[in-house]
Amino acid sequence: MPIRLDTKSPSFADAFATFLASKREASADVAAAVADIIAAVRARGDDAVIELSRTFDRVDLSGRIRVTEAEIDAALKEVPAETLDALKFAKARIEAHHSRQLPQDERYTDAAGVELGQRWTPVDAVGLYVPGGTAAYPSSVLMNAVPAKVAGVPRVAMVVPSPDGVIAPLVLAAARLAGVDEVYRVGGAQAVAALAYGTASIAPVDKIVGPGNAYVAAAKRQVFGKVGIDMIAGPSEVLILADANANPAWIAADLLAQAEHDTAAQSILVTDSGELADAVARAVEAQLTTLPRREIAQASWNDHGAIILVRDLEEALPLVDRVAPEHLEIHAEAAEELTARIRHAGAIFVGAYTPEAIGDYVGGTNHVLPTARSARFSSGLGVYDFMKRTSILKCTAASLNLIGPAAVRLAEVERLDAHGRSILIRTNAGPTDA
Amino acid sequence: MPIRLDTKSPSFADAFATFLASKREASADVAAAVADIIAAVRARGDDAVIELSRTFDRVDLSGRIRVTEAEIDAALKEVPAETLDALKFAKARIEAHHSRQLPQDERYTDAAGVELGQRWTPVDAVGLYVPGGTAAYPSSVLMNAVPAKVAGVPRVAMVVPSPDGVIAPLVLAAARLAGVDEVYRVGGAQAVAALAYGTASIAPVDKIVGPGNAYVAAAKRQVFGKVGIDMIAGPSEVLILADANANPAWIAADLLAQAEHDTAAQSILVTDSGELADAVARAVEAQLTTLPRREIAQASWNDHGAIILVRDLEEALPLVDRVAPEHLEIHAEAAEELTARIRHAGAIFVGAYTPEAIGDYVGGTNHVLPTARSARFSSGLGVYDFMKRTSILKCTAASLNLIGPAAVRLAEVERLDAHGRSILIRTNAGPTDA
Repeated sequence: MPIRLDTKSPSFADAFATFLASKREASADVAAAVADIIAAVRARGDDAVIELSRTFDRVDLSGRIRVTEAEIDAALKEVPAETLDALKFAKARIEAHHSRQLPQDERYTDAAGVELGQRWTPVDAVGLYVPGGTAAYPSSVLMNAVPAKVAGVPRVAMVVPSPDGVIAPLVLAAARLAGVDEVYRVGGAQAVAALAYGTASIAPVDKIVGPGNAYVAAAKRQVFGKVGIDMIAGPSEVLILADANANPAWIAADLLAQAEHDTAAQSILVTDSGELADAVARAVEAQLTTLPRREIAQASWNDHGAIILVRDLEEALPLVDRVAPEHLEIHAEAAEELTARIRHAGAIFVGAYTPEAIGDYVGGTNHVLPTARSARFSSGLGVYDFMKRTSILKCTAASLNLIGPAAVRLAEVERLDAHGRSILIRTNAGPTDA
Repeated sequence: MPIRLDTKSPSFADAFATFLASKREASADVAAAVADIIAAVRARGDDAVIELSRTFDRVDLSGRIRVTEAEIDAALKEVPAETLDALKFAKARIEAHHSRQLPQDERYTDAAGVELGQRWTPVDAVGLYVPGGTAAYPSSVLMNAVPAKVAGVPRVAMVVPSPDGVIAPLVLAAARLAGVDEVYRVGGAQAVAALAYGTASIAPVDKIVGPGNAYVAAAKRQVFGKVGIDMIAGPSEVLILADANANPAWIAADLLAQAEHDTAAQSILVTDSGELADAVARAVEAQLTTLPRREIAQASWNDHGAIILVRDLEEALPLVDRVAPEHLEIHAEAAEELTARIRHAGAIFVGAYTPEAIGDYVGGTNHVLPTARSARFSSGLGVYDFMKRTSILKCTAASLNLIGPAAVRLAEVERLDAHGRSILIRTNAGPTDA
């Protein structure tokens, strides 16, 4: 049974704090093993990649680390037309929304006559990690690769393990649709190391994104600095905020959609209606009986699920902000007003007709979102993640004369004389304009 | 003597690659020591902070971890009026420029009738690390705290070590001017741990920014995930791109302004004029003789400096992009055209009247910039670093009916049936609008 909390209980504050602090994942310490793998790939390149893939994926990659265009063509032919259409539809919607994120360059002259600006440029090369096996989701390929391409990244290189030689055709099809430029059948920490440091077969990239297991996460953490990385994603979560008029069956369906991901996933209902809470709990049990992934969903719901009863939805707002959920659904008459007042959430799904699953696939917004309370300080994946900003500064002799003295003074108090001199050598030269 | 490279030399490609790969910092492995410090602060809070400060800073912080407002008032009185005016001038210019970075929220309805949007909100609490001793720069306090305040962060908590009980009054003055809300006299990994996990005296924050030594960098890396962090900064660098008409004395002054920071700092001149190269080399030696920090600057210039001769500035562009310098100065007639064509640089200082030092203090742009080639994938500090984006999605019954089937199809091929069901339970209910 999921935990039930009630803000009217005198022990609520402690119980909620304990709930927030509860770990949903054993954090295996794989740092040392990963450091060895990275060192091996740096030292021996492709040979190490081939050896490690033989060990971990039971596959011989000699001479075939890269997936050929012909292999991708063949995979595309295996995908039914209806599925391909759905992927194309999703891709178009993701692309349309993300295109609106393209930031504007700026350049202006201020009152002192100093020109200031900022300019956005894409990263040259991005590596995209895609997990293998049952977690090889074509939708994830779209969600990671499309924003990179919208940003203008010229080279997107995808790595995906091929355990026992198998890569899901759908993943290759999604890569082709999303404009991925290169695909390598390598996974694990060795794939991250190859992307970061390069091998004879895999040219190094500048930034690595995408989800993965504990080894992949540890490898990303270790190569951070040498290359950029995206967030380290944890298990997924949803919080549904609902009033008494909400539909319990719909809420139950959404809680289970979250729970079926992973036994470590988390589904939370926050409501001011005890009746709704009970009805949702019953509906979850009823819907579970026919769910193919019921064992996973049941374990997630029993171990990490929660129903939190509040006096009114006003009281719920600070609780939601403390959870800072990856996904927040609002099923309430005042959905818009509540949306406006939430401060921390990766994504908000407004109103009962917006199940979170629509955002996983075709809503157009990104499904790579901050987990484990990190929406307090980070954002979902976007075009910004594949661009960087260069600041621009331009003085004339006159404007340097105007603002220079304050800089000289600050250089002096920081005892950085050469800083001051680099300004004085110009301003002492007199106010001739450049 | 700095290294001299010439693109006309047959060994240039190898020599340039070696130059790019050269490490300027011994990376001390302090990870284990830092992990112990973090564990101690998590377990014993203020007691551990006090013990560690006694050991590392030779100071007793019992009952006085926080710097009081009266102490900050007293520090302000110690700062000469001219210096305070310079700090205020710098703060106003940084604030004015960064205010233009505030991102716009967006909400729109697309052709399918789906409402999409993104909303930016500030982080609730930010921790700002400020190094102690001679590297306690008031300008760094402004550069880190002002963007946080422009972003709307309600709580900015600063930590600064007080070795032997001393904190520079200027640093406290800058904190007051910048609107820092709390100051703690704690440094090192223990300060980072306290900010990340909280103690009785220091409430936890959501994101930690600011420069520091190897211990601070390792601590930031280890608490990443629990809180957000900014980049891990390396030693500073400048690349000056100059044509034959550039002023060698000005260039020498700017190369030395960089070199005086740190023996690990790097100053690079790239020019198409052998005469200018020689004149700059002579000017550096001449200016060094009277520089207070000449030992540091000389070591930096000799060990890490470089003069690279190119056939023409066109040939320089890909070299500059490979260096991806933190600071790029362009002293050339074609400065604007060259600026437009550079892809990777933290900041560009356009034209001879824009010494890099002006950007360190009063230009208005941020001086916290990506080092060690990381401008390939990351940006200088800005308002964005203190905000996060929540995506918004809102369907009606009609728009869910329109886009739902493709999502159901994709859920099916990903074998996430509960995802598909959460859409079908609504669309099967018929096209009644919400």
